[in-house]
Amino acid sequence: MRSVYLDNNATTRVDYEVVQAMLPFFTDQFGNPSSKHAFGSSVSAAVRKARRQVHALIGARCDYEIAFTSGGTESDNAAMLSALEVMSDRTEVVISSVEHPAVLTLCTHLERTRGVKVHKIPVDHHGRLNLDAYRAALTTRVAIVSIMWANNETGTIFPVVELAELAKGVGALFHTDATQAVGKIPVNLKSTAIDMLSLSGHKLHGPKGIGALYVKRGVRFHSLIKGGRQERGRRAGTENTPGIIGLGKAAELARKFMEDVNTRVKLLRDRLEHGILQRVPNAFVIGNSLERLPNTTNIAFENVEGDGLVHFLDRYGIACSSGSACASGLLEPSHVLKAMKIPHAAANGATRFSFSRENRDEDVDRVLEVISETVQKLRDVGRYGSWLGDIQAYMP
Amino acid sequence: MRSVYLDNNATTRVDYEVVQAMLPFFTDQFGNPSSKHAFGSSVSAAVRKARRQVHALIGARCDYEIAFTSGGTESDNAAMLSALEVMSDRTEVVISSVEHPAVLTLCTHLERTRGVKVHKIPVDHHGRLNLDAYRAALTTRVAIVSIMWANNETGTIFPVVELAELAKGVGALFHTDATQAVGKIPVNLKSTAIDMLSLSGHKLHGPKGIGALYVKRGVRFHSLIKGGRQERGRRAGTENTPGIIGLGKAAELARKFMEDVNTRVKLLRDRLEHGILQRVPNAFVIGNSLERLPNTTNIAFENVEGDGLVHFLDRYGIACSSGSACASGLLEPSHVLKAMKIPHAAANGATRFSFSRENRDEDVDRVLEVISETVQKLRDVGRYGSWLGDIQAYMP
Ligand SMILES: Cc1ncc(COP(=O)(O)O)c(C=O)c1O
Ligand SMILES: Cc1ncc(COP(=O)(O)O)c(C=O)c1O
Repeated sequence: MRSVYLDNNATTRVDYEVVQAMLPFFTDQFGNPSSKHAFGSSVSAAVRKARRQVHALIGARCDYEIAFTSGGTESDNAAMLSALEVMSDRTEVVISSVEHPAVLTLCTHLERTRGVKVHKIPVDHHGRLNLDAYRAALTTRVAIVSIMWANNETGTIFPVVELAELAKGVGALFHTDATQAVGKIPVNLKSTAIDMLSLSGHKLHGPKGIGALYVKRGVRFHSLIKGGRQERGRRAGTENTPGIIGLGKAAELARKFMEDVNTRVKLLRDRLEHGILQRVPNAFVIGNSLERLPNTTNIAFENVEGDGLVHFLDRYGIACSSGSACASGLLEPSHVLKAMKIPHAAANGATRFSFSRENRDEDVDRVLEVISETVQKLRDVGRYGSWLGDIQAYMP
Repeated sequence: MRSVYLDNNATTRVDYEVVQAMLPFFTDQFGNPSSKHAFGSSVSAAVRKARRQVHALIGARCDYEIAFTSGGTESDNAAMLSALEVMSDRTEVVISSVEHPAVLTLCTHLERTRGVKVHKIPVDHHGRLNLDAYRAALTTRVAIVSIMWANNETGTIFPVVELAELAKGVGALFHTDATQAVGKIPVNLKSTAIDMLSLSGHKLHGPKGIGALYVKRGVRFHSLIKGGRQERGRRAGTENTPGIIGLGKAAELARKFMEDVNTRVKLLRDRLEHGILQRVPNAFVIGNSLERLPNTTNIAFENVEGDGLVHFLDRYGIACSSGSACASGLLEPSHVLKAMKIPHAAANGATRFSFSRENRDEDVDRVLEVISETVQKLRDVGRYGSWLGDIQAYMP
């Protein structure tokens, strides 16, 4: 059975070329880039190249605006904590209610332990930010605004360039969690007011455990992790050189495939979406009336347990997600769907299919082949039934 | 020219078996361990195995005492910041004056920004901790003691098991930065009073960008990086699965080669040390009258610039270090040598040779072949001369 991977917002397969690029840095060129001998210097040249590759993907002004981190979560944490330190006379932050836990959990913690006031800007049932509420929250008390570029669960794209301009008006720093956007849609930071941006390698066919934080030239920054002076004092710890080289290569490839993702892959996504709506009654797409990532669709099936659907499709070798992987373990609708006020009976059946450049027509065919039957079986058992045991008989 | 790598305290070559173990997790088994489908579950089983491998190397009680991080620096930061949070009624910390910048820089920051009182316990000129000063600093105001298991520059081993007992006496938490110890000397945490321990993959032939923090069962812990609930809430962010698998394999191999490092490799180190002292006048070993790592020797050459020696040996293909890589860029003696009150004229010539299981007899032969001539040339130019330019003529 060919397996069908449609969970690329959770993580992606590392591109073969990326693995090839990384390999020498484990064994032959294993030196510490800080070392002063040949083992060190050859590696540091490669790290510089990777920095330029990442810089090119997001249209930064210069490569030293890029600091490598361990991933999107660390970048998000580092950005927000730095802002609160460098803007120490300001004690408020503004975020959306649909941020990733990397931002939300940190904010809850800051609220509880440091008395930081967190404005969570609501979204409407399409996932659009409430601009009136956003404007109202922006005062000179705000140290940092952090609004994601694109949402991981729905693919909704936020108008971050405009939002950053508004934040600038009150002198607040603007950070965007672009973990899901970078590599999927064109990102060009030059001539925007965006001060900081987070990205993560494993969302763009790069390795896990590596990410980057863009800090605009001139923006003061305090490192989250203290120690040695790596990354020009922005991130201590021996550089993850294979990871960095891998992220660089992944960034280069993401530029190359940008067109493909926004045309062919988008068409695959659209075909899946339409195909499901045609075949399955009482299903609807969450956030489709909006600017959306080309690779993502989140479909709510009424009276279906999303976890059940994921489980059943898994038996057909189809991988998808009932929400973000980070929010797993809960049988409640995710905080994103709650914030969008999706009716409970539908939100519980929300299932995310997320594509990448590796997907092919037959992946869509396969899902369409089994989806209506599978949803029907789950509905027969009823979402409150103990489908996990009862349904075994039906399954392949 | 065969190159001779004697800078294993800076970083090590990733073992071929480790690379092999990691490879499938980039491409075939690339899933997110939090995902509920087959791509996720196969990976999470492998992560569990890696956790057991690390747990076995350090003699932890149970595998969930191990949280994976991005490396030694992050583990150190996480340990100390957590302790200050969970022991919020205590505002002092105790460290040694020869800690790694990962601990020292953080402490300086905490002193400046949070009013934490930091007791830096002095060492004598052999590098031994002043036990009277240590005892005097231990009061019920101390939240955490952080003393390294072994020093990266000199290899000096600290009596952490005893030091932890003393800390326990005043109810302080005890953390040890064992980044240089783990994999080189036996570490067995069971039945010690050590509460937290940091280790790093790339110091033991594992990958860069991965490390671990041991947190003893029952010790409360607050994560440094907030977000998803990975690592049982101890470290948010998608798991670096290839890194974790690699660290697991590296830990397994480190156990296997423990004997080799403490016999054959130790003899290589000793032979180099004696050979150099025989051949080069006015050279002495720093910290040799002490318990030392089996792989490290730090030799001070009077009236030689350590950086110059590193540079010259590099031209013979010999890699060593004039201090920790993290402290590079300074022409001052490192903070470790300063704390040991090594005379300036000698400390500036301090050169660290650090071995690993990959070293062979001929590596020692090669250094002994060229060392006395090289030191002599540097001395001829004089340490204040502009050796970098002037000396080109002499060199191979
Ligand atoms: C004693 C010690 N602690 C901490 C570290 C930092 O470890 P990492 O480079 O993995 O962050 C190092 C190595 O650089 C070290 O030698
Ligand atoms: C929007 C968003 N932000 C942050 C993250 C966290 O990134 P990482 O897993 O690399 O820490 C993710 C993915 O998990 C994400 O989708």
